[in-house]
Amino acid sequence: MKEIGIISDFGYGFYSGIMKGVIKNIAKDIDIIEIDNNVPSFSVISGSYILYTTYRYMPKNSIILSVVDPGVGTNRKAIIVKTRNYEFVSPDNGLIYEAALEDGMLDIYQILLFELRKYLETKYEFFKNNKFSYTFHGRDVFAPTVALLANEENIERFTKRININDIVKLRLRDFSRVGNLIKLNVIYIDKFGNVVLSSKFNDLKLRYGENIIIKVNGLERNALVGKRFADVKKGELILYENSFGFAEIAENQGNASKTLNVNFGQNISFLSL
Amino acid sequence: MKEIGIISDFGYGFYSGIMKGVIKNIAKDIDIIEIDNNVPSFSVISGSYILYTTYRYMPKNSIILSVVDPGVGTNRKAIIVKTRNYEFVSPDNGLIYEAALEDGMLDIYQILLFELRKYLETKYEFFKNNKFSYTFHGRDVFAPTVALLANEENIERFTKRININDIVKLRLRDFSRVGNLIKLNVIYIDKFGNVVLSSKFNDLKLRYGENIIIKVNGLERNALVGKRFADVKKGELILYENSFGFAEIAENQGNASKTLNVNFGQNISFLSL
Amino acid sequence: MKEIGIISDFGYGFYSGIMKGVIKNIAKDIDIIEIDNNVPSFSVISGSYILYTTYRYMPKNSIILSVVDPGVGTNRKAIIVKTRNYEFVSPDNGLIYEAALEDGMLDIYQILLFELRKYLETKYEFFKNNKFSYTFHGRDVFAPTVALLANEENIERFTKRININDIVKLRLRDFSRVGNLIKLNVIYIDKFGNVVLSSKFNDLKLRYGENIIIKVNGLERNALVGKRFADVKKGELILYENSFGFAEIAENQGNASKTLNVNFGQNISFLSL
Repeated sequence: MKEIGIISDFGYGFYSGIMKGVIKNIAKDIDIIEIDNNVPSFSVISGSYILYTTYRYMPKNSIILSVVDPGVGTNRKAIIVKTRNYEFVSPDNGLIYEAALEDGMLDIYQILLFELRKYLETKYEFFKNNKFSYTFHGRDVFAPTVALLANEENIERFTKRININDIVKLRLRDFSRVGNLIKLNVIYIDKFGNVVLSSKFNDLKLRYGENIIIKVNGLERNALVGKRFADVKKGELILYENSFGFAEIAENQGNASKTLNVNFGQNISFLSL
Repeated sequence: MKEIGIISDFGYGFYSGIMKGVIKNIAKDIDIIEIDNNVPSFSVISGSYILYTTYRYMPKNSIILSVVDPGVGTNRKAIIVKTRNYEFVSPDNGLIYEAALEDGMLDIYQILLFELRKYLETKYEFFKNNKFSYTFHGRDVFAPTVALLANEENIERFTKRININDIVKLRLRDFSRVGNLIKLNVIYIDKFGNVVLSSKFNDLKLRYGENIIIKVNGLERNALVGKRFADVKKGELILYENSFGFAEIAENQGNASKTLNVNFGQNISFLSL
Repeated sequence: MKEIGIISDFGYGFYSGIMKGVIKNIAKDIDIIEIDNNVPSFSVISGSYILYTTYRYMPKNSIILSVVDPGVGTNRKAIIVKTRNYEFVSPDNGLIYEAALEDGMLDIYQILLFELRKYLETKYEFFKNNKFSYTFHGRDVFAPTVALLANEENIERFTKRININDIVKLRLRDFSRVGNLIKLNVIYIDKFGNVVLSSKFNDLKLRYGENIIIKVNGLERNALVGKRFADVKKGELILYENSFGFAEIAENQGNASKTLNVNFGQNISFLSL
């Protein structure tokens, strides 16, 4: 059975519920995997991290719907990106860039809203009776599109081909090194307050057991480069490789994001001693 | 594949998990769509709004289980309402009234609890070993009933026909106009604090760009009738048509429900200037 | 269709989303029921209660994946327990003990991590490209194992048989009686603050209408043994049989866990007058 994966900031509730209903109206025999509907509201960078770390666990040939869409209602594009193993559907705000780049982009399409609407209304009675909105493209644009892809309908009818220069590029892995100072950004904070940074751990070339100084919000805090929380005492900070390969800061039995007072997108630096 | 939709105030956790398990014990090859398990606890009016705005996105011939049930354990009825395109199963507290009315009611049945229990115990070994409760009809009454409907079993064995005069009527769209004063109720508050009102936006016959005065809790607040949040400044109130056609009040980059200090079911008035 | 049930403390989000993806990579045509991903973090006793009360509502022959795993990364075992009607997969920390004991244990296996990994990498291309972790066994050990069980693959290749003396025993139902004093533990607190205790209600042999004294945190509070919240006044405590047969304390229109200031695992006593 064909799989459709969903990532959104709609929460678990009727916004995502409706998207599932719309998909099943068009593509009767597909299977839906809700990967994560709890992306922090409007945080494209966090959504990008979640998509990048999760898409690889979906079965090959899955279609992945990602909606974190602060620009809905503006003229931002809606896009389909076919890669070597997946098809991604999303607003064009960089959300899918790192995932699609890694998997290898094959074809990129812009969804033409008017043509999509006409196509749906001509072919599916369902869309004749339901009004199109300017604020809920998850329901009106993205859910129908993934379902049409699942049905292998002819998308040329409601898209035009564009190329990689036409889409927004958002780098998830983004750090710079000046002498022994490494500058990064916060890309995600998990439910324990662990702070995910904008680099694979290995790319930072730190040594286990090394002491570093974390600089953020004008403050300096010591931390240890370690492997397990237990490498530091309660209340101390540790920098380690998380289970997706990213650099992450945690406080043993504490909440690192509160201790450091950081949020998504904020800069953070290390001084490697 | 037949679809069963679920709306409840059970939250995402083992209460809804058990309902899914019970359904799959009886109806092996159906597909379950969790529309929304986060209806505000015990709020029948909010559940009614969610059902009314979402049922139309479910595939035709779906069976929709709705449980917001403050009266469980009392002698409130349990009902099945067959409409032109759907089958609704619910406690009889008005929850499904607006949705069923709009879709067109065909047949209404009262579920007879004792007969249902006997039917289940005779036919399904599963029910011989599991105790019937007075407090969890989602598990013991509603989930089995939707599964039996999905199997197209003979419901005459455990129901009796009733008519529209026998069921509770709860109006979702409910407003009155006296001169230039419009009185409504709060029917839902979303996760951003936006306040949904008891009328379709268009039925209020307001003009875009019009200034209104909102009266609630003895206070008066100015608001603009607009289309987009950006039509007002940060911290100002806007009344607009939400993506389901209802009148909704939001505060640009703020939380309207906190600013107005309103909750479900409360009265609210506008003075159209 | 074969069913896989999931219970975890991963929350609803991409941790559980990834487990679903991994399962579908291996077992294409199974159906997943998320029973509860909101087990309180790291609370094995609460997870045990949820599993014990819910497993019986899953279709027979379901495979149930339970992950509440504070010991991940240590040398705690990973196990498969086949019972009369189900197959349980879990870390060996007592989580599945009461459920498996009640259903009747047939065979117990320890999952051999190295052999599992080799088996997966040999047979499934997917696992060649994805790194094994020490911190996310839900993804790397338990999800693959339930999927291999669903496929009815030969588990002898990556397990060894062990027996009941080799696994951790965690008693959920655990109380003692000294004279008219009954000592129990708190095993779960629901979203309303109702406090579930470590005994079936009937085993306590209390009389309806009886007054008891609850002793906890050095304080004493009166409560009534009743059937319905309405048996006591607003703000008063009631001890009753919950819909799963367990003894539970609630405060009428209040939050008993806050009033008593109790948490999971804490001791609580009754003086039966």
